[in-house]
Amino acid sequence: MKAAVFYGPKQLLKIEEVPTPEAGAGEIRVKVAACGLCHTDLHYIDSGVPTFKKPPLILGHEISGTVDQIGEGVTQFKVGDRVLLPAVMSCGTCYNCRTGRENICMNMKMPGNDMDGGYAEYICAPAKDAFHLPEEIPLVEGSIIADAITTPFHAIKNRAQVKPGDTVVIMGCGGVGLNCVQVAAAAGASVIAVDLLPQKLEWAKQFGAVATINPKEVDNVAKAVRKLTGGGADIAIECIGNPKTMEIAFDCLRAGGRMTIVGYSEHAMNLNASRLMYREMEVIGSLGCRPVDYPKCIELARTGKIRVKEMVTRRFTLEEINEGFDYLRSGEGIRGVIAFE
Amino acid sequence: MKAAVFYGPKQLLKIEEVPTPEAGAGEIRVKVAACGLCHTDLHYIDSGVPTFKKPPLILGHEISGTVDQIGEGVTQFKVGDRVLLPAVMSCGTCYNCRTGRENICMNMKMPGNDMDGGYAEYICAPAKDAFHLPEEIPLVEGSIIADAITTPFHAIKNRAQVKPGDTVVIMGCGGVGLNCVQVAAAAGASVIAVDLLPQKLEWAKQFGAVATINPKEVDNVAKAVRKLTGGGADIAIECIGNPKTMEIAFDCLRAGGRMTIVGYSEHAMNLNASRLMYREMEVIGSLGCRPVDYPKCIELARTGKIRVKEMVTRRFTLEEINEGFDYLRSGEGIRGVIAFE
Amino acid sequence: MKAAVFYGPKQLLKIEEVPTPEAGAGEIRVKVAACGLCHTDLHYIDSGVPTFKKPPLILGHEISGTVDQIGEGVTQFKVGDRVLLPAVMSCGTCYNCRTGRENICMNMKMPGNDMDGGYAEYICAPAKDAFHLPEEIPLVEGSIIADAITTPFHAIKNRAQVKPGDTVVIMGCGGVGLNCVQVAAAAGASVIAVDLLPQKLEWAKQFGAVATINPKEVDNVAKAVRKLTGGGADIAIECIGNPKTMEIAFDCLRAGGRMTIVGYSEHAMNLNASRLMYREMEVIGSLGCRPVDYPKCIELARTGKIRVKEMVTRRFTLEEINEGFDYLRSGEGIRGVIAFE
Amino acid sequence: MKAAVFYGPKQLLKIEEVPTPEAGAGEIRVKVAACGLCHTDLHYIDSGVPTFKKPPLILGHEISGTVDQIGEGVTQFKVGDRVLLPAVMSCGTCYNCRTGRENICMNMKMPGNDMDGGYAEYICAPAKDAFHLPEEIPLVEGSIIADAITTPFHAIKNRAQVKPGDTVVIMGCGGVGLNCVQVAAAAGASVIAVDLLPQKLEWAKQFGAVATINPKEVDNVAKAVRKLTGGGADIAIECIGNPKTMEIAFDCLRAGGRMTIVGYSEHAMNLNASRLMYREMEVIGSLGCRPVDYPKCIELARTGKIRVKEMVTRRFTLEEINEGFDYLRSGEGIRGVIAFE
Repeated sequence: MKAAVFYGPKQLLKIEEVPTPEAGAGEIRVKVAACGLCHTDLHYIDSGVPTFKKPPLILGHEISGTVDQIGEGVTQFKVGDRVLLPAVMSCGTCYNCRTGRENICMNMKMPGNDMDGGYAEYICAPAKDAFHLPEEIPLVEGSIIADAITTPFHAIKNRAQVKPGDTVVIMGCGGVGLNCVQVAAAAGASVIAVDLLPQKLEWAKQFGAVATINPKEVDNVAKAVRKLTGGGADIAIECIGNPKTMEIAFDCLRAGGRMTIVGYSEHAMNLNASRLMYREMEVIGSLGCRPVDYPKCIELARTGKIRVKEMVTRRFTLEEINEGFDYLRSGEGIRGVIAFE
Repeated sequence: MKAAVFYGPKQLLKIEEVPTPEAGAGEIRVKVAACGLCHTDLHYIDSGVPTFKKPPLILGHEISGTVDQIGEGVTQFKVGDRVLLPAVMSCGTCYNCRTGRENICMNMKMPGNDMDGGYAEYICAPAKDAFHLPEEIPLVEGSIIADAITTPFHAIKNRAQVKPGDTVVIMGCGGVGLNCVQVAAAAGASVIAVDLLPQKLEWAKQFGAVATINPKEVDNVAKAVRKLTGGGADIAIECIGNPKTMEIAFDCLRAGGRMTIVGYSEHAMNLNASRLMYREMEVIGSLGCRPVDYPKCIELARTGKIRVKEMVTRRFTLEEINEGFDYLRSGEGIRGVIAFE
Repeated sequence: MKAAVFYGPKQLLKIEEVPTPEAGAGEIRVKVAACGLCHTDLHYIDSGVPTFKKPPLILGHEISGTVDQIGEGVTQFKVGDRVLLPAVMSCGTCYNCRTGRENICMNMKMPGNDMDGGYAEYICAPAKDAFHLPEEIPLVEGSIIADAITTPFHAIKNRAQVKPGDTVVIMGCGGVGLNCVQVAAAAGASVIAVDLLPQKLEWAKQFGAVATINPKEVDNVAKAVRKLTGGGADIAIECIGNPKTMEIAFDCLRAGGRMTIVGYSEHAMNLNASRLMYREMEVIGSLGCRPVDYPKCIELARTGKIRVKEMVTRRFTLEEINEGFDYLRSGEGIRGVIAFE
Repeated sequence: MKAAVFYGPKQLLKIEEVPTPEAGAGEIRVKVAACGLCHTDLHYIDSGVPTFKKPPLILGHEISGTVDQIGEGVTQFKVGDRVLLPAVMSCGTCYNCRTGRENICMNMKMPGNDMDGGYAEYICAPAKDAFHLPEEIPLVEGSIIADAITTPFHAIKNRAQVKPGDTVVIMGCGGVGLNCVQVAAAAGASVIAVDLLPQKLEWAKQFGAVATINPKEVDNVAKAVRKLTGGGADIAIECIGNPKTMEIAFDCLRAGGRMTIVGYSEHAMNLNASRLMYREMEVIGSLGCRPVDYPKCIELARTGKIRVKEMVTRRFTLEEINEGFDYLRSGEGIRGVIAFE
């Protein structure tokens, strides 16, 4: 089969012919329809973050496709089934998994990191980890559910615990941020989106924000939020991964409010411990998404409460993958995918 | 002022001239814009359920209007402000109130039951209990937020704890049921609505149900729900107040599912204790709505996530109030209101 | 090895020589130290409830012992380790398991029901399901943690959600009830124990109840509870499995209170739907215990917050097993075990 | 009456004759039995933190006594009743109060800060805010329930949400820390206490800690905790108010663990945002205690699950109050009180 192979940081991926994998016991083989281009890949390619499996490695972890081969003992899928693969596979037996928190599994495996991923014509995966994708969801665009939508879903539903009528500030309207906007809106929240780029704020409105703030246009973002909300937002979601915006997000909250951090930062943030204590604030981390919540995301996409088609602003062929990463680097669109169809 | 006065069961309300009330300390006087017609009133008029204040009594507890007089010490309102009054006023000091559950206040007072209500040109109420109604919400139709929307909101958000992606069965699509449909949909749920009348199922779809079931058209409602949901709904809401439909609702649930009872029944239900235990089911009561959640309902109406205008299917003048109750008895529309504008 | 074999209802178990099992891949073989005698066994022996594995079958599901053989791939145990086996083994992949609710696993397997159990010198079990038992806990008496203590623990902590300072009524002070008493007391609750037998109420006090009620000595149990608690208990736990006592338990509660049902009843209970709704009551089922909570029970036993030694009122040899079941039928003691030491 | 009057920072309190207050409508007058000496007072006396009511002011907010005069309309108390006054009185009408979070009331009033406090023979307080103190609790030592016990209770139960079997690290074993130890132990936790002073660790053991760590005796506190707990504590409570110990407390936690901050620090802490996100940690503030939880603390003291008598290590007369504050400054004992009996 053809695959885009990663040989190390600061190198272009190479399109090569590699052996097509065979489905082992309990596995399915998926003919890949699409694989989303994600910033996580850029960490490996541009920033030199090491992958767990040493290169050469096939990257890619937002994968949709059709079942093409059935391994021994697999009963829940048949050839031709439309499927979505999760961005992370969990062990199922560690303490976190057994408390219903597979998303922080102590032994998690990620396609395109711990093992070969989805920038290839075929991939094998445990059947227990795959999800049926209904006809109402387009196969190519459905791929991005696997991370770009599930990660915000988990953050909004389980960690930020957004409830209908809550006011929610979203800091940063990239792929994760915009999906936080649309998931929070789908959960009944009044979303205030914050970003420096007018285009992204425009998208935020299209995906359900009731108000937007451009930090360039106000003196103080937190004050602007407090004015809009009559005292502070119920919840703030930080999607940028910047200690400075974390502090601003924290400042946007009412007494008793909750900040959820989705963005990754290697730096520490300055947490106002006095305000945290006196106003009983909450600061909560969020990572990935539990497998049990994938079908809920799929259902939201099926019924149109979450839109996937409009999130994919450009398609690339496998051969165009390096161009695809340039598109991602440019920050121009919302989400690009490698499409095989 | 003019008011519709209740003199006792099985009698028509009488339109009379009564003294206009004066705002006491801490109170506001509201010039009533509209007051919703509710089944609770029919309990007094038709079924002889006694009111706490003996007749003659002015009924009506879904009240919107404009502030017309300010009592001593009131600072949060001024003459001309658009306001919504809650269906129930709480004491603020009993155990339930102080645990944030004012909706089950042990000393609650209801306009049109414990004291004169809203089928009149004016009404006085404690300023601490009134809510600002923003311009985006029409004053007349906004009245129904006070019970028809807040009661479902509380049931869905706090008691059923509906989360995005949940499947929710709603038994009964009258005023309360239809609002449960739209609130659950606004919370991101996939709603299955159940009713015997095709018109109500049609409305349920318009207000956000993704599927409907007419018990006349299926062998077994619970089986139909299990098929649609692949094993059972996450949550069932009973809005009818019938032990039989409570049992059906319970049967619709997956293992670990939750049934919330909003409908009033004077009869006991047969609870399958073995199923409750072995599958860890939950059965939860829901009553009214906490004051702190009113602004959240208002925000949902303001942003269009919840629709109030379409819920009011007919307006009556105060003089037509008995006709209005006939309309309510007929079960034809969704919601009628007495409008003064 | 020697084992007590069940050949069918209404028959004595037979002590026989059977093949000693061998640890398969991922399994450990346990030299049984003790196996608790449980009412569940009586359901098979006396009441004809069918077992999933057809007889001949070795019963017994409360098992402690030492590791005696290590299967392929097992790393977390070594020969000689003191272990506790859980009463139920879960699949780890169904929806319930993956939401952290392995105790209601859709494919659960129980030793002494789905497979051979612990009334034998040896038993094999998956290593992933076994728990280390620290030196501070006596091996023989520790066996009862596996059901008699874990089931109440789950009911109290996860389902009833007892918190420090709560008032908790426990209906029935058999093995499960008394352990509910001691677990609730260990969680900081003020426990009121209810039973018809003075001896059991005496034990209840020894295990931490602050008050006891003998229904023979009061006019009305619910009234007595309301008087003691100043309005109703926060939580009621039904450990008998009788629709009548479930109704009494429900009546003992304050507005907003929670009843948890642990006892099994094949009959429906009459649930006062009006009281449930108007007072926002909660009725919650509870079954078994999640594997992740076993170490917490073991820790409570290790630190003496939960007492296991005093719970075992009599030991029997394997040969005396039928006598042991007579002891169980008599209701005289708290808990009997088959001890091999 | 006699009172100890505060005239400003860096000055000794003066014992003076001042007018005895009279109970207004809805108030009770309490003949003070005891008033606890608290670090909060030292903030005013030593550090110059301003009080809301300008001096001259009577300090003191941990007050027990007997009702001595009944204001108009008070029905829940009679002369001679033993009572406890809360450390903070809430407005009952702000958003926080109405969501059941009176402890973060936006308009809270504190005796000995916003109004005259308890270092005096008499004090008046709203009857709705006072609590009955049962005979089983000694009147003098019962005074410290009002802050030294309720603040830890709220932190442990509501904010840290400690559950039976949890491992809990408590950083700092002063008055607040030791009470966190005993409340967490009463809630069924396995407590690891951390302090630099051997005497305080000794007390921690007496109040229920299962293990103690002296940072002087280990290389790394977090590592020591991880070893003891097999991977990290479920919960950490910071009772010192030092950014450095907050960071250590955070480091003691397992993935998914929760840190609650009870200690006040004017400095920001360095929060490891990457660890927070990747391991889904939670950082939670805690302040004071909700009125509804006072009776639960009183019940725990009544039944001996929480000990108050042993917490009071020294009594002073009103005339000895400045000596009492020296005792507090010395850090020698656990808790001193001004006793009038």
